[in-house]
Amino acid sequence: MYMSPFTFLMCVICIASLGYGANVMAFEPTSTSPSKLPPWSQVEDTDPDPDPGETTQAVFTLNYPRIQIPFEITLWVLLASFAKIGFHVYHKITVWVPESCLLISIGLIVGGIMHSLHEKPPAVLTSNVFFLYMLPPIVLDSGYFMPTRPFFENFGTVLWFAVVGTLWNSIGIGISLFAICQIEVFGVKDITLQENFLFASIISAVEPVAVLTVFEDISVHEQLYIVVFGECLFNDAVTVVLYNLFNHVAALEVVEAGDVFLDIGRFFVVGLGGTIFGALFGFVTAFTTRFTGKVREIEPLIIFLYSYLAYLIAELLDISSIMAIVICALTMKYYVEENVSQRSCTTIRHVIKMVGSVSETLIFFFLGVVTITTEHEWNWGYILFALLFALLWRGLGILVLTQIINPFRTIPFNFKDQFGLAYGGLRGAVSFALAFTLPDSIGRKNLFITGTIVVIIFTVFIQGITIRPLLKLMNVRKTNRNQETINDEIHKRLMEHTVAGIEDLCGQWSHYYWKDKFMKFNNRILRKILIHDNHPESSIVALYKKLELQNAMEVLDQMSGDISAAPSLISLQYVSSTSRPVLLFSEVFETV
Amino acid sequence: MYMSPFTFLMCVICIASLGYGANVMAFEPTSTSPSKLPPWSQVEDTDPDPDPGETTQAVFTLNYPRIQIPFEITLWVLLASFAKIGFHVYHKITVWVPESCLLISIGLIVGGIMHSLHEKPPAVLTSNVFFLYMLPPIVLDSGYFMPTRPFFENFGTVLWFAVVGTLWNSIGIGISLFAICQIEVFGVKDITLQENFLFASIISAVEPVAVLTVFEDISVHEQLYIVVFGECLFNDAVTVVLYNLFNHVAALEVVEAGDVFLDIGRFFVVGLGGTIFGALFGFVTAFTTRFTGKVREIEPLIIFLYSYLAYLIAELLDISSIMAIVICALTMKYYVEENVSQRSCTTIRHVIKMVGSVSETLIFFFLGVVTITTEHEWNWGYILFALLFALLWRGLGILVLTQIINPFRTIPFNFKDQFGLAYGGLRGAVSFALAFTLPDSIGRKNLFITGTIVVIIFTVFIQGITIRPLLKLMNVRKTNRNQETINDEIHKRLMEHTVAGIEDLCGQWSHYYWKDKFMKFNNRILRKILIHDNHPESSIVALYKKLELQNAMEVLDQMSGDISAAPSLISLQYVSSTSRPVLLFSEVFETV
Repeated sequence: MYMSPFTFLMCVICIASLGYGANVMAFEPTSTSPSKLPPWSQVEDTDPDPDPGETTQAVFTLNYPRIQIPFEITLWVLLASFAKIGFHVYHKITVWVPESCLLISIGLIVGGIMHSLHEKPPAVLTSNVFFLYMLPPIVLDSGYFMPTRPFFENFGTVLWFAVVGTLWNSIGIGISLFAICQIEVFGVKDITLQENFLFASIISAVEPVAVLTVFEDISVHEQLYIVVFGECLFNDAVTVVLYNLFNHVAALEVVEAGDVFLDIGRFFVVGLGGTIFGALFGFVTAFTTRFTGKVREIEPLIIFLYSYLAYLIAELLDISSIMAIVICALTMKYYVEENVSQRSCTTIRHVIKMVGSVSETLIFFFLGVVTITTEHEWNWGYILFALLFALLWRGLGILVLTQIINPFRTIPFNFKDQFGLAYGGLRGAVSFALAFTLPDSIGRKNLFITGTIVVIIFTVFIQGITIRPLLKLMNVRKTNRNQETINDEIHKRLMEHTVAGIEDLCGQWSHYYWKDKFMKFNNRILRKILIHDNHPESSIVALYKKLELQNAMEVLDQMSGDISAAPSLISLQYVSSTSRPVLLFSEVFETV
Repeated sequence: MYMSPFTFLMCVICIASLGYGANVMAFEPTSTSPSKLPPWSQVEDTDPDPDPGETTQAVFTLNYPRIQIPFEITLWVLLASFAKIGFHVYHKITVWVPESCLLISIGLIVGGIMHSLHEKPPAVLTSNVFFLYMLPPIVLDSGYFMPTRPFFENFGTVLWFAVVGTLWNSIGIGISLFAICQIEVFGVKDITLQENFLFASIISAVEPVAVLTVFEDISVHEQLYIVVFGECLFNDAVTVVLYNLFNHVAALEVVEAGDVFLDIGRFFVVGLGGTIFGALFGFVTAFTTRFTGKVREIEPLIIFLYSYLAYLIAELLDISSIMAIVICALTMKYYVEENVSQRSCTTIRHVIKMVGSVSETLIFFFLGVVTITTEHEWNWGYILFALLFALLWRGLGILVLTQIINPFRTIPFNFKDQFGLAYGGLRGAVSFALAFTLPDSIGRKNLFITGTIVVIIFTVFIQGITIRPLLKLMNVRKTNRNQETINDEIHKRLMEHTVAGIEDLCGQWSHYYWKDKFMKFNNRILRKILIHDNHPESSIVALYKKLELQNAMEVLDQMSGDISAAPSLISLQYVSSTSRPVLLFSEVFETV
């Protein structure tokens, strides 16, 4: 693999700057945590005096512990940004090797350096940091940019795969591994059934980040994309509940039936609680943005604060925080983007993307670092069988579950789709964090951590690198929607109204009917409460606005120096050719 | 003052939510800080068991300490945002009472409630938090949106007021207060000359936030605006050095001449060091954004990270961090905005404004809270004289200093301007933070804190509220530049080139000559290194782009439903009427 001089330079700078941070850390141990003493008085104390007889004040002084925390966080984030920039300077690398692999590799290198210097990994890598600071931006990003229409159209399938699929995987892997444990020769007879289930629930969590990038790049069919997307988002609720259940059960001597029922109840509380909570916060956010017309500068902040609050309170109440923030983002998006100014809207989208992307980068990077610096326990048999079962049960699960769901789908999954779904089940950050969260009471904690890391690295590297060529080779159904056009939007809405009408006549109510009902409720009540200037605006007009702004920005970005080459005529053409008929069409719809 | 129901509602929600946070805090003491234990194992430990016989797992569990830190920060920021929204729902309030006054008032109320509940103020209110987290966004905001042209045109005056003015105030107030201390009846004979100087240096720091809002609102003359703006930014370097000096000297028995010389040297190191450092970081930032073409989503992050890094490292090296971040922002802005995409540019500006505005809100709010909850020492004589001298020396200083600087200025300050300068010298957040940073070795620390708070509240409330009507009454020179136009830009550049040419002929070199030299250096070398697509782009074209985008966004924001009412024709008019002649003019300039 050719590494550009720039990439190399960036890496050197990063590692050097990191080494600097680490060295200073080593010289001044972190136990001198930032105290509340005034900075200057501290300086005078710690500063070695060049000439104590004359003066006690030096021209240059250093007080590292005071700035340590923000400084090191800034350096790590900067490092992550450098890595991202470095990879993309030559786009060739990231086409074939997913970014996550590259990041884990750099993490491995940095971890190796830290290990050889006997540095401890940054203390920030705790599960609290992961769940409270790094996961929310990623999930918010996913939730906010979730394609709403396909998501609701495939809602049933998504839930089916997320809930039943994860249960299937956990139970299947757990039982199979327990069977392996009974074989004397592997030397893991002390791992109980409960502990096996616990480990199985950890390695069942499928991760969206890595797969979705690939799916987006090769633009697979929308149906496939949204099912993987939704499954990854919602199987968290299942995984975390299962993890809690097995974690709790692993500590018990005898498992009683009451526990199982309580946990089924708990599952619904966690999932539905998160959903209701998220929707509530979404509406409150939308309502708040009604009043921000005079303070445009803080509009984006409102969105971030409420989403984060939804996540935190859900964490506090132990309901699914991921569901809460996803549903919150999904609910608010539509109303918020009409209330806030164009600039705020751009900022909201950009910042969500930015923070999500950095969090993601940091997680994969840290995964690499921790892989080197953590204590491992290696057991060939157990780990290889865990990997095998993880792949096997995933494949089997997809095969069986698609057979069951296919009759209910308008567009059934064919064999190629099934392969894509099964092969796209990479494990990632959530598994990693859950493994680190294991209580010390589990005897084989280190084995489980090692096993999880092996499964993650195998799936991310082997499946992650090969999925692109394989899907290309198999010629998996591509998306038929290259670019949004107003024409597209008009015909889609026309069809939907027609189908809803026909269904009404037949007396058969599918989601078109419910969508129609919701749209009426939305237009009559919700919009009046939540939106400041409640002019009726159809999705067609919204799309027109979006395209128009996109166009204006592109024209301005491209044009350099020679303005005459970039006439604003394009906008004019839009107005004359598309907007008039659009309005006619939308008027027709309003009367349908 | 009429309080809208909405404002009231918002306040109630805020106070209630805050009370909730505080109460939960009270139940579970903060000593149980977020530990590294897995969250679920913690839950099981602390959760009171409803029925220990059957199961140890409840459906709902609470683990507040785990989310306490991010949760409370989010709540405080949300509270600040609510306050801002509340004030602006009825614009009438903020027209007459500056936002800072309203915020301090709300802070006083919240502080009162906390005091009556015997709550301690949030532990986050340390000088470290202020200097490391709250000040940087505010200063970055100021630096990034500093009007570059008037700033450089008034550079001498700004430095004159910032350096000599602050010295004048500190020494004047210090000596006068020392004289007051000699009067037996006030009972403050134990305050030494050094301590008086220390206190004087604290209350000399003039604060930009409060004044600039007023100046912007009544759109005073650019000259006046930029001098206050610049003075406030740069007197920090002076104040902090003076504070360090006096803080150090206050601990000494005998003051030696060597110390004084060392401190003069230190002053230059701090100021120039900050400037050079900032410029260096600015160029590095610009250079980095050359390579972000493929990773547009993290472009804004690069800007924030580098600026913050400049600030932190400057803090570490004990050079002026405010200078570093201001100069960094000033240097990078021009290049960065050409390198990044239009969307990133909008995001950068919006986020800087947003974070700055929230930090500012929080500071004034906390000032109110801490005023109630801190321990005070009241001494009528000392505090009132401190206030009197603070006002007196500021007025006297402006009178004398303008007399000296006026002969060197093209547009001298008239009496009204002088009044505006003197009366606009509000004290604010920096004084407040410095007072709290005082070491405990100062016997009268509480008196100094009380005195500082009195001076701040007096200036913010009395001067802050009256400055708008007074300036309006006096009819202070207004700005003559309502809106940027391309015509304006063309003529300004034409004039500048002409003046530079004439000066060259006369052999007299003013800043026009240097600006011309710099522009040549910039075009030949800097732009080639720092800008990705280095097409020569004159400031006129940049302005055209800016206006065009502004226009596109406004059109899209206003238009609702009825697209036909908002033709994109406007953009077309711009192109046909202005861009062609612009290009001709700029070609002429290039050949001058």
